[in-house]
Amino acid sequence: MVDITHKITSLREATAEAIVKTSSQATIDAIKNNDVPKGNVFEMAKAAGLLGVKKTPDLLPDCHPLPIEYTGIDYKIDGLDIIISMTVKTIYKTGVEVEAMHGASIVALTMYDMLKPIDKNIEISTIRLKSKKGGKSSFKINSE
Amino acid sequence: MVDITHKITSLREATAEAIVKTSSQATIDAIKNNDVPKGNVFEMAKAAGLLGVKKTPDLLPDCHPLPIEYTGIDYKIDGLDIIISMTVKTIYKTGVEVEAMHGASIVALTMYDMLKPIDKNIEISTIRLKSKKGGKSSFKINSE
Amino acid sequence: MVDITHKITSLREATAEAIVKTSSQATIDAIKNNDVPKGNVFEMAKAAGLLGVKKTPDLLPDCHPLPIEYTGIDYKIDGLDIIISMTVKTIYKTGVEVEAMHGASIVALTMYDMLKPIDKNIEISTIRLKSKKGGKSSFKINSE
Amino acid sequence: MVDITHKITSLREATAEAIVKTSSQATIDAIKNNDVPKGNVFEMAKAAGLLGVKKTPDLLPDCHPLPIEYTGIDYKIDGLDIIISMTVKTIYKTGVEVEAMHGASIVALTMYDMLKPIDKNIEISTIRLKSKKGGKSSFKINSE
Amino acid sequence: MVDITHKITSLREATAEAIVKTSSQATIDAIKNNDVPKGNVFEMAKAAGLLGVKKTPDLLPDCHPLPIEYTGIDYKIDGLDIIISMTVKTIYKTGVEVEAMHGASIVALTMYDMLKPIDKNIEISTIRLKSKKGGKSSFKINSE
Amino acid sequence: MVDITHKITSLREATAEAIVKTSSQATIDAIKNNDVPKGNVFEMAKAAGLLGVKKTPDLLPDCHPLPIEYTGIDYKIDGLDIIISMTVKTIYKTGVEVEAMHGASIVALTMYDMLKPIDKNIEISTIRLKSKKGGKSSFKINSE
Repeated sequence: MVDITHKITSLREATAEAIVKTSSQATIDAIKNNDVPKGNVFEMAKAAGLLGVKKTPDLLPDCHPLPIEYTGIDYKIDGLDIIISMTVKTIYKTGVEVEAMHGASIVALTMYDMLKPIDKNIEISTIRLKSKKGGKSSFKINSE
Repeated sequence: MVDITHKITSLREATAEAIVKTSSQATIDAIKNNDVPKGNVFEMAKAAGLLGVKKTPDLLPDCHPLPIEYTGIDYKIDGLDIIISMTVKTIYKTGVEVEAMHGASIVALTMYDMLKPIDKNIEISTIRLKSKKGGKSSFKINSE
Repeated sequence: MVDITHKITSLREATAEAIVKTSSQATIDAIKNNDVPKGNVFEMAKAAGLLGVKKTPDLLPDCHPLPIEYTGIDYKIDGLDIIISMTVKTIYKTGVEVEAMHGASIVALTMYDMLKPIDKNIEISTIRLKSKKGGKSSFKINSE
Repeated sequence: MVDITHKITSLREATAEAIVKTSSQATIDAIKNNDVPKGNVFEMAKAAGLLGVKKTPDLLPDCHPLPIEYTGIDYKIDGLDIIISMTVKTIYKTGVEVEAMHGASIVALTMYDMLKPIDKNIEISTIRLKSKKGGKSSFKINSE
Repeated sequence: MVDITHKITSLREATAEAIVKTSSQATIDAIKNNDVPKGNVFEMAKAAGLLGVKKTPDLLPDCHPLPIEYTGIDYKIDGLDIIISMTVKTIYKTGVEVEAMHGASIVALTMYDMLKPIDKNIEISTIRLKSKKGGKSSFKINSE
Repeated sequence: MVDITHKITSLREATAEAIVKTSSQATIDAIKNNDVPKGNVFEMAKAAGLLGVKKTPDLLPDCHPLPIEYTGIDYKIDGLDIIISMTVKTIYKTGVEVEAMHGASIVALTMYDMLKPIDKNIEISTIRLKSKKGGKSSFKINSE
């Protein structure tokens, strides 16, 4: 684990994106109409994602534990794709990129687990960092 | 959570695949030559993945806890991509697809976290079920 | 921890009840209209409760780990009270009473945490076993 | 999760109360005489409660992880009731009310789990915040 | 992780021993008289050990999760040494040696943590398997 | 749990040592030649140890959660013994001695679990604090 004892604390923010690809409009409709047998997909996946962000250092060996000061989740439906956007903020010595990516992956996996019984061809495509602020380098992907 | 009290136990197996896309041959060489500052990427990610599979029901609300009886990880390097293959087996009432997918995602995220300091453009693409055996339906993707 | 190696496996079911007492109709309306700033209270508390049931043996020293085969949550609004009903099933050597009670308490605490910003006088009253089936003794409280 | 990046750190303290209602003097005597088969109820429940306070953000989705700087547990026997008082302190941007309430509930549930074999009618009544200091508003319930 | 899908279930038992070496009779007396400021050392370490046994597969990558059906802890004081004996039982396909050793180490570390403020020279010596039953080979160390 | 709200933050460092005693040169050779069936012993035990350090407050009741800012592991082979050296740093109000000792024990247990199939007489001897810096007292054992 990298030694960060000498580093300075600053505001850090990162947004990660994960995409869940469904295979039919019926799946998208079931989500929108809150008709999925296991429950409200967006709200339950959000709860799992908020908890998942906080568990990142329990799962990734080199990840420093840090004070998560904000976690927010947005969903966008684009055709048959659901685009998950997970933003994390901290005021600490290291960034929260991996926390945002782990949180986005847990949201995507929860959606996969809830939707699998009604859509056998569901898949998770692309988990990536979309933007970060603070630290040595800022960064933004032009995703469109 | 689906009621499985009436279900019959059988051997179940699932293999999930995650792909880590590096952006330069130098990254691939550093992994192969065991030159990554944070340690041996394949072995440390394997340890994280074995633990991650077992933590799946702690992270996904509707996932039944079950006896993980085998977990295996294979890596294949294909150009600048690292293809992670995570296989899980159980003898139980439900399958291990989500466990394999969660494990593959933790392996991919650990690699991302270890490689990020030497490759700023690293990305995780595609986490998907590759095959499953047992249960109502067998399933195999022709991935090539 | 009690030695259960000699015990016989059977279907066990337990339902626990927890009551969240809000202090104004505005709180109940905010829940019903999905207007609580932290999110959908019933769905997020359900996700936390499903995870909480599975974590019971991580928190209670003498509790045996066991295969949770069903978890279900029902909510009933009774005036200013929210009555949480948490049912757990297993096929195992011991019952799931404590798992149901722990799950009900996590649902109640999640609701408390989400509602506290809009209702300063919220309180959790009564966490108790409502019924159990299987094992040496069946049991049912006449709660009305 | 509420964004607290702009908030100021201060000393925060909260005390929560949970009441375990036993159904006979024999139960109270067994606790006092350290005759409960599963072990010393007050000491083991204290250990579980100290660990439980620290696990609060693992269980409640919107709860910020924070540096727990003090946890203390007091027990008072009042007739057949055991009154658990759990105090938590931090120096941070948010309060520790929910941490104290979660800790009190884990102490109560551990006592329930240890006493259930000798007292079938045991029940947990009332988990509530008793006082808090620091933050925008101080607060104290007149409980007698 | 070793594939155990083909293995047969049987009763397994293991006892591990850990030794905590204190440096003065005053420490031993404080334990016996229940005068240690952090609480009752034997009872709190027992609670931590019961929880620790159950968390073994969360910490050791290759360890199969299994149904812990009994955990018992004995303490023996031998001069300035405290001999911890941790017994674990399961009915499963693999043994519980590592679970017993992990549990014994958590009991020893909890005692170390509680006693350190009153005994600066405390040390943990020897964590080893003392006996096991079931599986391919039985085993017993003559420890005296 | 000791109240540390009034304490001052400073750089703290602790190194703990654990010794794994193998019983034959074949075991040492298998480790060196990376021939152990369960995988690369040093790298996988390192990953488990990094995670283990972070989980210390989840396992030891009185241990304050704190920001782990560095974790490093060194291995030295001395005849048939493997000497594990685990160093932890924080900038906080309490030391990291117990964290280093817990991490060293998890590294030792992971090695034990991986090597047990090829060396039935493997044992863990001595887990102790080797040095600490910061806080009221510095401390160094002359280990040779």
